[in-house]
Amino acid sequence: MGEIVVFSGAAHPAFATEICDILGTPLSPSQRLRFSNDCLQVQLRANCRQRDVYVVQPLVPPVQENLVELLLMLDAARGASAAQVTAVIPHYAYARSDKKDAGRISIAARLVADLIATAGANRVLTMALHAPQVHGFFSVPVDHLTAITQLAEHFADRDLADTVVVSPDLGNAKAATQFARLLGLPVAAGNKQRMTDDKVVIDSIVGDVDGKNAIILDDEIATGGSVVELLDRLRERNVGRMSLACTHGLFTGAALERLAAQPELEEIVTTDTVPLPSDAVPPKLTVCSVAPLFADAISRIHLGESVSSMFARVGGPG
Amino acid sequence: MGEIVVFSGAAHPAFATEICDILGTPLSPSQRLRFSNDCLQVQLRANCRQRDVYVVQPLVPPVQENLVELLLMLDAARGASAAQVTAVIPHYAYARSDKKDAGRISIAARLVADLIATAGANRVLTMALHAPQVHGFFSVPVDHLTAITQLAEHFADRDLADTVVVSPDLGNAKAATQFARLLGLPVAAGNKQRMTDDKVVIDSIVGDVDGKNAIILDDEIATGGSVVELLDRLRERNVGRMSLACTHGLFTGAALERLAAQPELEEIVTTDTVPLPSDAVPPKLTVCSVAPLFADAISRIHLGESVSSMFARVGGPG
Amino acid sequence: MGEIVVFSGAAHPAFATEICDILGTPLSPSQRLRFSNDCLQVQLRANCRQRDVYVVQPLVPPVQENLVELLLMLDAARGASAAQVTAVIPHYAYARSDKKDAGRISIAARLVADLIATAGANRVLTMALHAPQVHGFFSVPVDHLTAITQLAEHFADRDLADTVVVSPDLGNAKAATQFARLLGLPVAAGNKQRMTDDKVVIDSIVGDVDGKNAIILDDEIATGGSVVELLDRLRERNVGRMSLACTHGLFTGAALERLAAQPELEEIVTTDTVPLPSDAVPPKLTVCSVAPLFADAISRIHLGESVSSMFARVGGPG
Amino acid sequence: MGEIVVFSGAAHPAFATEICDILGTPLSPSQRLRFSNDCLQVQLRANCRQRDVYVVQPLVPPVQENLVELLLMLDAARGASAAQVTAVIPHYAYARSDKKDAGRISIAARLVADLIATAGANRVLTMALHAPQVHGFFSVPVDHLTAITQLAEHFADRDLADTVVVSPDLGNAKAATQFARLLGLPVAAGNKQRMTDDKVVIDSIVGDVDGKNAIILDDEIATGGSVVELLDRLRERNVGRMSLACTHGLFTGAALERLAAQPELEEIVTTDTVPLPSDAVPPKLTVCSVAPLFADAISRIHLGESVSSMFARVGGPG
Amino acid sequence: MGEIVVFSGAAHPAFATEICDILGTPLSPSQRLRFSNDCLQVQLRANCRQRDVYVVQPLVPPVQENLVELLLMLDAARGASAAQVTAVIPHYAYARSDKKDAGRISIAARLVADLIATAGANRVLTMALHAPQVHGFFSVPVDHLTAITQLAEHFADRDLADTVVVSPDLGNAKAATQFARLLGLPVAAGNKQRMTDDKVVIDSIVGDVDGKNAIILDDEIATGGSVVELLDRLRERNVGRMSLACTHGLFTGAALERLAAQPELEEIVTTDTVPLPSDAVPPKLTVCSVAPLFADAISRIHLGESVSSMFARVGGPG
Amino acid sequence: MGEIVVFSGAAHPAFATEICDILGTPLSPSQRLRFSNDCLQVQLRANCRQRDVYVVQPLVPPVQENLVELLLMLDAARGASAAQVTAVIPHYAYARSDKKDAGRISIAARLVADLIATAGANRVLTMALHAPQVHGFFSVPVDHLTAITQLAEHFADRDLADTVVVSPDLGNAKAATQFARLLGLPVAAGNKQRMTDDKVVIDSIVGDVDGKNAIILDDEIATGGSVVELLDRLRERNVGRMSLACTHGLFTGAALERLAAQPELEEIVTTDTVPLPSDAVPPKLTVCSVAPLFADAISRIHLGESVSSMFARVGGPG
Repeated sequence: MGEIVVFSGAAHPAFATEICDILGTPLSPSQRLRFSNDCLQVQLRANCRQRDVYVVQPLVPPVQENLVELLLMLDAARGASAAQVTAVIPHYAYARSDKKDAGRISIAARLVADLIATAGANRVLTMALHAPQVHGFFSVPVDHLTAITQLAEHFADRDLADTVVVSPDLGNAKAATQFARLLGLPVAAGNKQRMTDDKVVIDSIVGDVDGKNAIILDDEIATGGSVVELLDRLRERNVGRMSLACTHGLFTGAALERLAAQPELEEIVTTDTVPLPSDAVPPKLTVCSVAPLFADAISRIHLGESVSSMFARVGGPG
Repeated sequence: MGEIVVFSGAAHPAFATEICDILGTPLSPSQRLRFSNDCLQVQLRANCRQRDVYVVQPLVPPVQENLVELLLMLDAARGASAAQVTAVIPHYAYARSDKKDAGRISIAARLVADLIATAGANRVLTMALHAPQVHGFFSVPVDHLTAITQLAEHFADRDLADTVVVSPDLGNAKAATQFARLLGLPVAAGNKQRMTDDKVVIDSIVGDVDGKNAIILDDEIATGGSVVELLDRLRERNVGRMSLACTHGLFTGAALERLAAQPELEEIVTTDTVPLPSDAVPPKLTVCSVAPLFADAISRIHLGESVSSMFARVGGPG
Repeated sequence: MGEIVVFSGAAHPAFATEICDILGTPLSPSQRLRFSNDCLQVQLRANCRQRDVYVVQPLVPPVQENLVELLLMLDAARGASAAQVTAVIPHYAYARSDKKDAGRISIAARLVADLIATAGANRVLTMALHAPQVHGFFSVPVDHLTAITQLAEHFADRDLADTVVVSPDLGNAKAATQFARLLGLPVAAGNKQRMTDDKVVIDSIVGDVDGKNAIILDDEIATGGSVVELLDRLRERNVGRMSLACTHGLFTGAALERLAAQPELEEIVTTDTVPLPSDAVPPKLTVCSVAPLFADAISRIHLGESVSSMFARVGGPG
Repeated sequence: MGEIVVFSGAAHPAFATEICDILGTPLSPSQRLRFSNDCLQVQLRANCRQRDVYVVQPLVPPVQENLVELLLMLDAARGASAAQVTAVIPHYAYARSDKKDAGRISIAARLVADLIATAGANRVLTMALHAPQVHGFFSVPVDHLTAITQLAEHFADRDLADTVVVSPDLGNAKAATQFARLLGLPVAAGNKQRMTDDKVVIDSIVGDVDGKNAIILDDEIATGGSVVELLDRLRERNVGRMSLACTHGLFTGAALERLAAQPELEEIVTTDTVPLPSDAVPPKLTVCSVAPLFADAISRIHLGESVSSMFARVGGPG
Repeated sequence: MGEIVVFSGAAHPAFATEICDILGTPLSPSQRLRFSNDCLQVQLRANCRQRDVYVVQPLVPPVQENLVELLLMLDAARGASAAQVTAVIPHYAYARSDKKDAGRISIAARLVADLIATAGANRVLTMALHAPQVHGFFSVPVDHLTAITQLAEHFADRDLADTVVVSPDLGNAKAATQFARLLGLPVAAGNKQRMTDDKVVIDSIVGDVDGKNAIILDDEIATGGSVVELLDRLRERNVGRMSLACTHGLFTGAALERLAAQPELEEIVTTDTVPLPSDAVPPKLTVCSVAPLFADAISRIHLGESVSSMFARVGGPG
Repeated sequence: MGEIVVFSGAAHPAFATEICDILGTPLSPSQRLRFSNDCLQVQLRANCRQRDVYVVQPLVPPVQENLVELLLMLDAARGASAAQVTAVIPHYAYARSDKKDAGRISIAARLVADLIATAGANRVLTMALHAPQVHGFFSVPVDHLTAITQLAEHFADRDLADTVVVSPDLGNAKAATQFARLLGLPVAAGNKQRMTDDKVVIDSIVGDVDGKNAIILDDEIATGGSVVELLDRLRERNVGRMSLACTHGLFTGAALERLAAQPELEEIVTTDTVPLPSDAVPPKLTVCSVAPLFADAISRIHLGESVSSMFARVGGPG
C-alpha cells in the first residue's frame, strides 16, 4: 500500500493540519465548489491511486453540509482508486441517535454508518462515540479512540479530596464510571428525563454528592442546557467546587459564555475534536489536543501496528 | 398492499399537499426536530406498516439539509415496515453532477442515487432529469416523468411564426429537440463552455436564429446566468421576441428579477417542482402545475397501471 | 400476503404453542434431524409459499444449537417462497455482546444480526434487548417489545412505601429508570466492574438505599451471581424487603435455588420468554406470560396495524 | 501487489498483443472451449494468485459471445485469487443503450456494468464511452480514456480553412464540441431522429455549414448509415471537402466500401479499439493506434500513478 | 399480486405458447431488436407493473445470445416494476459447468446463476439440472421440476423383462437410480473419462448388462457422442434391445440422424424443454411434453400452492 | 500483505499446531469464553492488522459450537483489520447437505457458505468436499485440496491383484473413479437408498466384485453404518480381503471398534482433518497426515504461488 494522503473537509481543517504536522505529511489540497443550485462538488487535488487515503471531517454544524461533503470526498477517493479509504470522524455527532426512543424514526447513527460505507469508506477512525454500541453500527472496521485517559491525566494533579464524578445521565454512565476508576473517585449520576423535544429535566441526583466537590463528565456539550440543569441540582445538594470535562466541546450559541458565568464552575476541559467557537475563549477553558492520538492511530493503521494497544491501560475505549 | 400514505419533507410541502388534494388522501403528518448539535430527526406520525408510502422532497436549497432529511424519512418508513417506499423527488438537482468532467470528483448523481437506495427507497418518482442517462444511476425502478408536453401545450396557441427553439447547451440538447418536434419548430443551441468554476461562456449560437423569434428551453434555471448570457448572444443575432421555458425554476438570489428585467423576454414559463421564491412574482412568470402528473403517476403505481403510457404521445420521457 | 404460518424451533415450543393458541392458528409441524456427523437438518412440514411465516426461537442454552437451527429454518422458509419470514426471538441472548470491551473480539450481537439477515429473515420480533442500541444492529425491521409495563403492573398493587428501584449496572440503567417512573419510585444502581472473565464485582451502590426496600430490575438473569453480589451490597446498606424482577429468567444451574434461599428476597418475577428450569419451581417465583404480547404483535404485523402503539403509555423501546 | 498478467478474449487478440509488446510483458495464454451444447469455458493458463490481472475484450460482434466470454474470464481470475482484476474494454458497445427511450426496456449499459461487477471485475479500463454519463453506471472505479487528442492531432496539420466539425446528433454533441475546441473550429450538428427501429433520419443540419468543409466526428461507426445520411444533408448545403473521424470503427457489412465510395469523403480516420474488417482496406482509411494509451494507463494503474493526468491538456475524457 | 404475464425470449416460443395455452393466458408480446453494432434490445410490450411476470427461455444454442436476451428481459421486467419476476429456464445448460475440474476456470453454473439474480430474477423455475447441487448455486428460490416420472411412465407399459437402466456416467448416476427404482429395474453405469477437451471415452461398463436389454438415461443429449460410445460398449457386452431417454434433447448437428441409424436403438424418448431440430424427425423419436408440468408449477407459484407436492411420489426432484 | 498469523478454534488445535510447525510460525493464542447465558466470545490475542490471517477449524462435533466459534473468530479478525482472512476448514461437514432431497429444507452447505462469507472470510481452504459442486456454493475463492493422491500412494505398494475400488454410493462415485484410475483398478458402487431419516440401505452392488478383493473409498465415515452395510453386500458377493479408505474419519460413537471387529477388513486408512477419538486406536488404523498439504497451500497462498499445481498429476481436486 502506497503512502499516506490526508484530505480535510471544510469542518475542521486546523485539526487535520495538526495531524499532518505530527505525521510529517503535508495536508493534500482539495477544492469545494457550490453550484448555483446549492449542490456540492469536491475535487481531491492529489493523486490517490493505490494510496492510503484519510479524509478528516467531524460532523459539526452545519452537520448536513459536512456529512454530504464527507460522502462526496469518500466517493471521490474510491473512484480515484485509493488502496484504502479511511473516514476520520473525530466527532460522530449522529451517534446520539442510537435507538428508537419514539416510533417511526430512523436510528440515524446506523443509517449514517451505512451511508459512509456506501460512499466508499473501508474504515472509520473516530473518538468517544456517545454509546460504545454505536461501534457495532458500522459494517466496516472501526478504530475507536478515547480521550478519557487524557482528561483523567489533566485532573490527576488537582486536589481531588472529597470529589465525586457526576454523569448527567444515569442511563448512559459507562464513560463516567471508567473515568472515575482512573482517578480513584466515586461516581454519581443525574436522573435525566426528556420532557418535550427541546426540554430535558434532571429531576434528581442518584448517588452521594452532598457537600462534596464534583467533576461532571459528558461526551458532548452543545448548548450546555443539561449541564446547567445538573449544576442547579448539585447546588441544591451543597456541592462545592465543580469542574466540567467533555470530549466534544461544541458550545453552540452562547454556551461557553453561559457556562463560564456559573460561579462554582472552576474549570471547563475539552479536546479539539471539534472547532472552538471563534469568539473570545474564557480563561476557565482548557483544551487538550487529541491530534497526537489521531496521528498515532493513523500511523499504526498505516504500518499495521495494533491500535487497541494504545489504550491498554484503560482497558479499551469501550 | 395497503393504502397510500404520503409524507412531505421540509422542502416543498405545498406541492405534496397539492398531490394529496388530487389523490383525495390527507397529507400524513411528520415532525422534524433539530438537536442542539445540529443533527436532524424526523418522526413519521402515521402508521406505515404494510402501506404504500411516498416521501415527497425535491432537492432544492438548502440541498444538503433536504437530502439528509429525505434519507432519514425513507429509513424511518422502511424501519416502520412499509410495504413499499417511494422517494418522490420532483427535482433531482444532483443529476447535474452526472460525469467526471474533472479528475478525482464524485459522480454525485450516482452516489446520491446509491444513498437513496441505501436509505430504503424501493422506487423513485422524479421529473426531467438533467440527462436521460441519470435514470440508469438508480438501482431501484425509476418512474421518470416529463413536463415537455405541458410546456409545449402552453406554447401551442401562441404565435409561433418564425420561431426557433434554443437550447443553451449544444452538448445536451435532447429535450430541446423533443420540445421542438412537438411544436413543429426548428432548433438551435448555444455552444457553452465552462471557463472557471463559476463562470460559463456561450461563445456562439449553432443554428439559424438570425432575425427570428426564440423559445429558450432549459431543464433547470438557478441564477439565470446562462440564460442571460444566451440572451446576449441571441440579441447579437437580431432575435426578436423571446420566451423562456424550464421545468425546474429555482430562480435563486435575484434571478427572477434579473430575468424579468430583460426587455425582449416576453414570458417565463416554469412548473412547480420546486417552490417559487416567496417574493413578489413578476407578471411575466407563468407556473404550470405538474402536481396532477405526479398524482396520476402515484395512482398508477399504486393500482398497477402503466406509467409509461402517460407519455405515449411524446415517445417517452427519455 | 397469505395466512400466518408459525413454526417453532427446539428451544421453547411451549411458548410458540401459547402464541398459536391465542392467535387461533395451529402450530405448524417441523422435523429436526441430526445427521451422524452432528450436522442439523430441519424440514418445515407445512406449505410456506406466499405465506406470512414466523419462526419462534429464543437463543437459550444450548445457544449455538438453537441459533444454527433458527438459521436453517429461516433459510428453508425463504427457499420455500414464503412471502415474508419473521424471526421471533423472545430472548436475543447475544445482545449482551454489544460492544468491543476488549480488543479483537467480535461484536457478536451485530454479527448474529447479520447472520439472521443472511439466512433470510425479513423482520425480527424480539423483547427487551440488553441495550436499546442493539435494535440498530439489524439491517431488517425490528419490532422490539418490552415487558416493563407487565412487570410494573405486577408491582403496582404491592406496598411500595419507601421503595427504590435498583439496577445492578450503573452503566446500563435505562430500563430501570423507565420502570421506576412507571411506579413513581426513585432509582439507584450498582457500580459493577468486571474483574476477570468470570468474576463481576459490585463495589458500591450509587443512590440512596439505606434502610429502604428495593426492587431489583435486570433484563436477564443467568447464574444470578450479579444479583447475589448486589443483595450483599444492599444488605450492607440495611435494605429491608427486596424483590427481583427480570424479563429473561434463564436461571442456569442452581440459580433459582440459590436466589430462593436469600431470606430478604420476597419475590422473583420473570416472564416466559425462555423456558423455566424443569425442576420444582419455588413458591417465590411468579411468571408473567408475555405470549399475549407476542401474539398481539404478530397479529398487528400481519394485519398492517401499528406495533409501536402497543406501548404508547410507556414510550418504551419503540 | 504482484506482477501484471494480461489475458485476451477472442474478440481482438491483436490489440492485447500490441499492449503487451509495449509493456514488455508476454500475453498470457488462455484456452476457450465450446461444449457441444454451445456453452463456453475459458481456462486461464497462467498463475493469477496475488497478481494484477487484465482481461482485454472489446464488445464487438459477436457481442453476446464476447460479453459472456469476458464474464467467464473475470470470474475465473477472481476465483484464482487475483489481487485485482481489471476488465479492459476498449469499446464498450452497450454504452449506446444508456437510457429508457422506450417503455419496458433494459438500460443495458447499466445492466452490463452490473454483470461485469458481479463477475468479479474490480476496475474497468475503457475508451470513448458513447455518453460520459455511462461512467457512472459502474459501481467499480473506471479509467476512461479518450482518443479525441489523437484524432485532433491527426488533423492538426491538415488545411483547416473554412472547416466546421459536424456531430451527427445534436442531442449528443459533447465530444464534437471538445474536438472542435482543440482544433479551434466551429461546430454544427445533425438533427437526428429515430423513425423506426432500423431507420434513422437526419432532417436538418443545425449550424452554419454552407459552402464550408467538414470533419464529421462520431464515437462509433457500424453500418455507416447515419454518416451517409449526414453526407447527403451536407451535400445539400454545398459542403465541399469532407473527412470522417471516429474512435470505434466497426464498419460492419459493406460499410467501409460504401463510405469509401462517397466521392467528397477524403479521409476516414479511426483507432484500433476494434478489429478492422479483414478485407482489403481502402486507401482513404487511416488507423491511429491507441494501444500506447492503454499500455500507458495499465502501467500507471499498476504503479499507482495518476491516469487522469494523461489527459490534462483536454480537461479529461468527460 | 396482480395477474400472470408470460413473455418468451427467442429460444423456444412454441414452448411458452403451449404453457400459456394450458394456463389460458395469452403470451404477452415482446420485441427483440439487434442494433447495427450487434447489441440486443428487448422491449416488453405488456404492462408489468405489480404483475407476476414469467420470462421463458431455455439456454439452447445460440446459448450466449439466449442468455443475454434473458438477462435483458429480466432487467426490463424489474425496471417496469413487476411484483415478481420468474426466470423460467426449461433447460439450464450451464449446469454442466458445475465444478472446477481444471484450474482457473469459472464455475459457470454459479456465475450464470449470479448473473440471473443480478438481472432481477426473484425466482427460477427449471427442470432436470445436471446435478442436484446446482440448485444451491442460486441465491433466489428455485422450483426444480423433474421429468423422471413422465419418462418412467412412458416405459411402464413396455416389455421390461431382463432390462437394466444404464447411466453414461458413473460419477453422476443419481437420476438413473431414481428412474430405475420407479420401474423396479437394476442399474448400471459407464465409466466415463474425458480424454481431451473434445473427446470422451467410456472405457467400461460397471454393473451387470451382459445379454440384457437396456434403457439408457441421460439428462442432456447434444451431439450424442457419449451415447454412441456407450452403445458400442453395450454391444460388446451383448446387450440386445436398447432405448434412450433424456430430458433435454438438443440433438445438435446430425445427432438425431446418427442415433436413429443405430440398429439396436429401438426408441428415443425426450421432452420439449428445448426446440427439436426443424428437420424431418425420425419415427423412432417420441416427445413427451412437459409444458403441462411447467404450467402447473406456474399456477401453483401464482396461487401460493406447494410445488414440491407435485413430485411427492418420487420423493422430489433432488 | 504482512506476515502469516494462524489461530485455531477449539475443534482441532493439534492439526493447527502441526501446520504451524511445518510453516515455522507459532500458533497465535486466542481465548474462548463462555458466558453464563451460554453465548460464546473469542478474543484473538495477536495483532491482526494488515496481516494474512488463517483460522483453522474443521466442522466436527459439536458442529454447531464449532461453526459459531469459527464465525466469531472470522468476524474478530476482520474487525481487527486483517489484510486477508482465510477460513481453513479441513472438514466442511455441512457439504453433505448439498441438495434439496426433501421439500422445505435448507441447502445447508450453501447457507453455511454464505454465513462464512458474511462473517468476514475472504477465502476458504478446505479438503475433499462431499461433492465437487459444493465449491460453487462459496462466493469467495476456495482452495480445494484432495487427499486422493496420499491415499492412493498408501495403497500403491500393497498387493492389488484382483482388486476393485468400491464406492458406497452409485450416485456420487466421482472420487472413487479418480482413485481407481490412480491405482489402475476397476470400480464398482453400492446402490444406496435412504429409507427413513436414520436408515440407509444398500440393496445391491453395481459392478463386478465377485470373488475379488476390495478397497472401499468414502469421503467421510461417521457411525460407519453405510460401510458395515456395504461390507455385508460385498461378503454376499464373496469378496475376499477388504480395506477401507476415507478422508474424514470421524468415527463417532463406537464406530472404530465396530469396524475393527469386521474380520475381512484388513486396514482402515484415514487422514487427520478431524481429531481421532481419544480412546485406544486399533492397530488396523493408519492415519496419513495432510497437515503438510495444508501448510504447503497456506505458504503458496501467502507467497502468491499456484495452489492448483499441487495436484497437477491427478488433474485437480474436482
